[in-house]
Amino acid sequence: MSVNTFGRLLRFTTWGESHGPAIGAVVDGCPPGLTIDESVIQPFLDARRPGQSKFTTQRQEPDQVRILSGVFEGKTTGTPISLMIENVDQRSKDYSDVAKAYRPGHADYAYDAKYGFRDYRGGGRSSARETASRVAAGGVARLVIPDVTILAYVSEIGGDAIDMANFDPAEIANNPFFCPDAQAAKRWEKIVDDARLAGSSVGAVVECVATGVPAGWGAPLYGKLDADLAAAMMGINAVKGVEIGDGFAAARLTGEQNADPMHPGSNGPEFSANHAGGIAGGISTGQPVVVRVAFKPTSSILTPQPTINRAGEATELFTKGRHDPCVGIRGVPVVEAMMALVLADHKLLHRGQCG
Amino acid sequence: MSVNTFGRLLRFTTWGESHGPAIGAVVDGCPPGLTIDESVIQPFLDARRPGQSKFTTQRQEPDQVRILSGVFEGKTTGTPISLMIENVDQRSKDYSDVAKAYRPGHADYAYDAKYGFRDYRGGGRSSARETASRVAAGGVARLVIPDVTILAYVSEIGGDAIDMANFDPAEIANNPFFCPDAQAAKRWEKIVDDARLAGSSVGAVVECVATGVPAGWGAPLYGKLDADLAAAMMGINAVKGVEIGDGFAAARLTGEQNADPMHPGSNGPEFSANHAGGIAGGISTGQPVVVRVAFKPTSSILTPQPTINRAGEATELFTKGRHDPCVGIRGVPVVEAMMALVLADHKLLHRGQCG
Amino acid sequence: MSVNTFGRLLRFTTWGESHGPAIGAVVDGCPPGLTIDESVIQPFLDARRPGQSKFTTQRQEPDQVRILSGVFEGKTTGTPISLMIENVDQRSKDYSDVAKAYRPGHADYAYDAKYGFRDYRGGGRSSARETASRVAAGGVARLVIPDVTILAYVSEIGGDAIDMANFDPAEIANNPFFCPDAQAAKRWEKIVDDARLAGSSVGAVVECVATGVPAGWGAPLYGKLDADLAAAMMGINAVKGVEIGDGFAAARLTGEQNADPMHPGSNGPEFSANHAGGIAGGISTGQPVVVRVAFKPTSSILTPQPTINRAGEATELFTKGRHDPCVGIRGVPVVEAMMALVLADHKLLHRGQCG
Amino acid sequence: MSVNTFGRLLRFTTWGESHGPAIGAVVDGCPPGLTIDESVIQPFLDARRPGQSKFTTQRQEPDQVRILSGVFEGKTTGTPISLMIENVDQRSKDYSDVAKAYRPGHADYAYDAKYGFRDYRGGGRSSARETASRVAAGGVARLVIPDVTILAYVSEIGGDAIDMANFDPAEIANNPFFCPDAQAAKRWEKIVDDARLAGSSVGAVVECVATGVPAGWGAPLYGKLDADLAAAMMGINAVKGVEIGDGFAAARLTGEQNADPMHPGSNGPEFSANHAGGIAGGISTGQPVVVRVAFKPTSSILTPQPTINRAGEATELFTKGRHDPCVGIRGVPVVEAMMALVLADHKLLHRGQCG
Repeated sequence: MSVNTFGRLLRFTTWGESHGPAIGAVVDGCPPGLTIDESVIQPFLDARRPGQSKFTTQRQEPDQVRILSGVFEGKTTGTPISLMIENVDQRSKDYSDVAKAYRPGHADYAYDAKYGFRDYRGGGRSSARETASRVAAGGVARLVIPDVTILAYVSEIGGDAIDMANFDPAEIANNPFFCPDAQAAKRWEKIVDDARLAGSSVGAVVECVATGVPAGWGAPLYGKLDADLAAAMMGINAVKGVEIGDGFAAARLTGEQNADPMHPGSNGPEFSANHAGGIAGGISTGQPVVVRVAFKPTSSILTPQPTINRAGEATELFTKGRHDPCVGIRGVPVVEAMMALVLADHKLLHRGQCG
Repeated sequence: MSVNTFGRLLRFTTWGESHGPAIGAVVDGCPPGLTIDESVIQPFLDARRPGQSKFTTQRQEPDQVRILSGVFEGKTTGTPISLMIENVDQRSKDYSDVAKAYRPGHADYAYDAKYGFRDYRGGGRSSARETASRVAAGGVARLVIPDVTILAYVSEIGGDAIDMANFDPAEIANNPFFCPDAQAAKRWEKIVDDARLAGSSVGAVVECVATGVPAGWGAPLYGKLDADLAAAMMGINAVKGVEIGDGFAAARLTGEQNADPMHPGSNGPEFSANHAGGIAGGISTGQPVVVRVAFKPTSSILTPQPTINRAGEATELFTKGRHDPCVGIRGVPVVEAMMALVLADHKLLHRGQCG
Repeated sequence: MSVNTFGRLLRFTTWGESHGPAIGAVVDGCPPGLTIDESVIQPFLDARRPGQSKFTTQRQEPDQVRILSGVFEGKTTGTPISLMIENVDQRSKDYSDVAKAYRPGHADYAYDAKYGFRDYRGGGRSSARETASRVAAGGVARLVIPDVTILAYVSEIGGDAIDMANFDPAEIANNPFFCPDAQAAKRWEKIVDDARLAGSSVGAVVECVATGVPAGWGAPLYGKLDADLAAAMMGINAVKGVEIGDGFAAARLTGEQNADPMHPGSNGPEFSANHAGGIAGGISTGQPVVVRVAFKPTSSILTPQPTINRAGEATELFTKGRHDPCVGIRGVPVVEAMMALVLADHKLLHRGQCG
Repeated sequence: MSVNTFGRLLRFTTWGESHGPAIGAVVDGCPPGLTIDESVIQPFLDARRPGQSKFTTQRQEPDQVRILSGVFEGKTTGTPISLMIENVDQRSKDYSDVAKAYRPGHADYAYDAKYGFRDYRGGGRSSARETASRVAAGGVARLVIPDVTILAYVSEIGGDAIDMANFDPAEIANNPFFCPDAQAAKRWEKIVDDARLAGSSVGAVVECVATGVPAGWGAPLYGKLDADLAAAMMGINAVKGVEIGDGFAAARLTGEQNADPMHPGSNGPEFSANHAGGIAGGISTGQPVVVRVAFKPTSSILTPQPTINRAGEATELFTKGRHDPCVGIRGVPVVEAMMALVLADHKLLHRGQCG
């Protein structure tokens, strides 16, 4: 089975391969009457766009999104919104290596095992290029939750973490790493550039905080807000771990340390801490929703690795082509998009059941 | 919206509250002809059953499962299997504290914010008691994947991790902690007992390994095997983090360190490492599927915490009643059950699309 | 695949066989705070209950429904509502005939072809007994749409139709046929009794009208209100046809005859006709929603029919046991229940998307 | 909520409005390795294409389908197949009448009641133009069920039915009505042309027969093959009734008349009749699957009808523009497509559960 749809009330379906004519998303279930045109979505795609610094892949894609349906006179109509992004820079190259053998760490072998063959050009459907569709869909989702602010940033690259004492959201847009700590951004230049020059790659951790989420979104037990976020984030290419709030660190706390005591505030209940990351029992508490996402290092490296070919024989392979030395960096707009899509869906779900 | 169903082809729906007459699960989509009776499911419930040592809650529940439908002459018929477990030991006590105020760290406030009120007796639907239904459903799922072996264990309690050099699967059943390291189990006795005596609690990490999963289960992109596992695990009570394979540690590796090189083996392809945890591009690779799950410390502690009451006024509350000092311990059979349910579902999904 | 769940936001899952210990339904997604106890649901089950006249099966089932979850202090909590009905009168009889051969017109052969075997006792899962679960679930759904009035009745038995000039809703409860035409009810006594005495059976048509449905429920294009009603009704045992509004008769009209002209009314728009049955483009118009459902004659008859046994050899079979001579009669509460379930679901869906 | 996706394992999502730049469908879940290119799908679109005779709308649309994803080297890859059809002949006209008032019998009023406004150009999303997307998706579905033959035809126009004694499948392609009875086709020329010249319209009945469906596809109880077919057909524009097998006529038969006796045949079991239309208990029996679909007369007529405008005031409206005098005719390829999509989905579902 192929599952390319995500969401329950606000749903999106993505399609397209790295080297096909286009990729896209169909967003269904969007409330009517929201003001929208391409310019509302494009900035998020621009943030994710490759080729903007030497720290990301040099593939040049304008990533211009086109709205093909579901909008009339600048408003969403409530019917499906078809978003299309043309592929422009599918470099014509020799894929015979990749076609014949499996790149270690890639989805090549798994795809062949499942489907019997695969579109090997640029990774086909398993390419991180698919995430552009998510970002476009996320641009629509944001319109559904205008009171929610979503902020993601890279908190760690190659094991080097930011210092929260230096945290400045205004810094995020000032460096090519979505880094809120100016000093860390400096250090990362060398880390990522070294990896790039060595034909190697490094991993990263992305943190995402959504403020303005009211208490009450989510659901027990199999549509928990945190479970849906976990699926959303783990479904992004190269992601291997997801934490809500304190995550694995919570497993090292005592009950007292982990408590989030409450007290009356000027605008309703307030909390003295947010170990829970804004979600309890699968339902939002009104605190910021905090998610942390681990990206593995890009699998595409220049060092040859032992592998097998389609005939099952031993061979070696390294991945030519244009790749991100740290795929986690461009994961930031993708994580934000998935956060928006999950929250918008749960807003509608809550309204559906509870009015 | 309330979502109490999980899965796509093999689906289960759970119902019931901690202090209602019973809890249960309806398992739908099970293949016909599988040999089953209550004795096949009961051992998994017995493993999760409370009150078996001083390290878990003292609530006494026999957790006897009854099959009410979907089985004929000892075989699954392909129609829905209704599983029911009666609640026996709902201790009649005074819930007036919990009814009036919100226990910090619990779902109380979030439930009230969503639904306007809640069944406060023993946590109602948000009680970990619900996990018995999952374990029962998991017992059915295991029959669907007879060639898969699922092994979970606690790898860390209160920050004290096992030593993999001591790893002995036979030890897991020898101590009350599902601990594969006899020395760690010794240490944990004191950690957990200290927490219990202090009315405190500690967190834990559970690891789960599924061997015998063939390459090819899973799906790109929104039904990825790892994304479904993430949702399954994050949906368990008290879970705050999920990792596949190396998880967050992978974010600290280089591409070379994280590669899983392949070579020809006697029974098909073999891998020299398993950083990926058996999943690439959302599809199983044939390697063991490895998941790691972080459980926060039980929120129910005897130390009073500042909180508010339903009128929004400041108050203090501590949680009376019988509670697990380390809820992660009894999470082991639950994690195994969710692993079984996800894998069984993906086996059927793969067969549906690819034959 | 087995699919025993219906609905999108308000969903229900049924389980149970004719001769198992019990049957039931789990209703999920119900809004919180609705006043409910067993007495709210029981009257609908009583209306469907067999053995109340000589015109229905003589199986004696009290059909007492029990609420096992999802209700606290007389209110729905928003969590799943588990409804259970015990089977009481599973007459112990000799099923060897039915076990070995396929009853013509029954699901026996199709079940065996699908699953390899079947629970042949009383039809197992394919028994009309399952409809009790739907009626119970429908009792919950009605609470979600308190402003909607649902009225179903038999409009035709054995080809003998009511005269709309005699239509009197008060008559429906006055005869064992749910017949709104007192004269037709008289005639049907003989038709159904003749069939019963001859060991034969007759078909029926049930009409259902829902008033008070506001304009705007439903959805283009694959969640159309009429498409969901069609699935709901066609999924009832023995149903072979569904019409919305004029149905097949509309295919014989001209565009002018079929138009439903509008004009201003005292309380908003009014229509001069309702050929559309209250639905246009898949969305309710505010007019009464009208559905017509064709029930085939009960397949269980005493006249032996040529058939084959499980070995594929020719044999003859007639159906012993207690059966409805006209299964459409007891279809009336079932059709009402499915109408309620579909409308309640669409009310929530509409609220979810459009606020 | 907007629901523009149909199916469970083989799913398709359609998007696009009558007067937008394009329409399309994304088909997900298709098995890998099926031979496909545009030429496989185009003939079905050509059969549905408007403007081919004076008996259909004169809008000229080449309806050229483009495959944008999911196909590599002429084979389906198992990933989503994006199909796009550009709108070419959106005649620029004055829509001010339709924008301001509701066309009786159209979805105008219902859309406004739901969404607050609508894309009124050519009916927007409620236009029958959407059915081109279904036909394209159906072309993919047919590849999944190569052993099934699907044949639909018009059996009745304006109340004038074919004579089954004249039934000749070869005739269907010989006339502009998909009519298998040459004599009826002659008569229909006058019926439809008279309606056209009078600015009126007529209804039609379409019959569809699928042969080669093995016994065992379908599911009890809420995924019954007949229930899914009912939803599929009732969801087509202008459809008001659906019958399986004898349909409403079965309600007038006795149990003896309606029986489908079985006997051993040379290739397995055979039936002496097919009143059931090839489905019993929601599962296919191996007999031809027979569905009958009622299309109302086109709502767009030239005779002015009383209606109201958006301000709720009385007015009159007739529908200018290019319309089918009998929308049921072009329903034939659409009914075939929906039959293919439902059957293909159930083939995969059956394989998923039962192997």
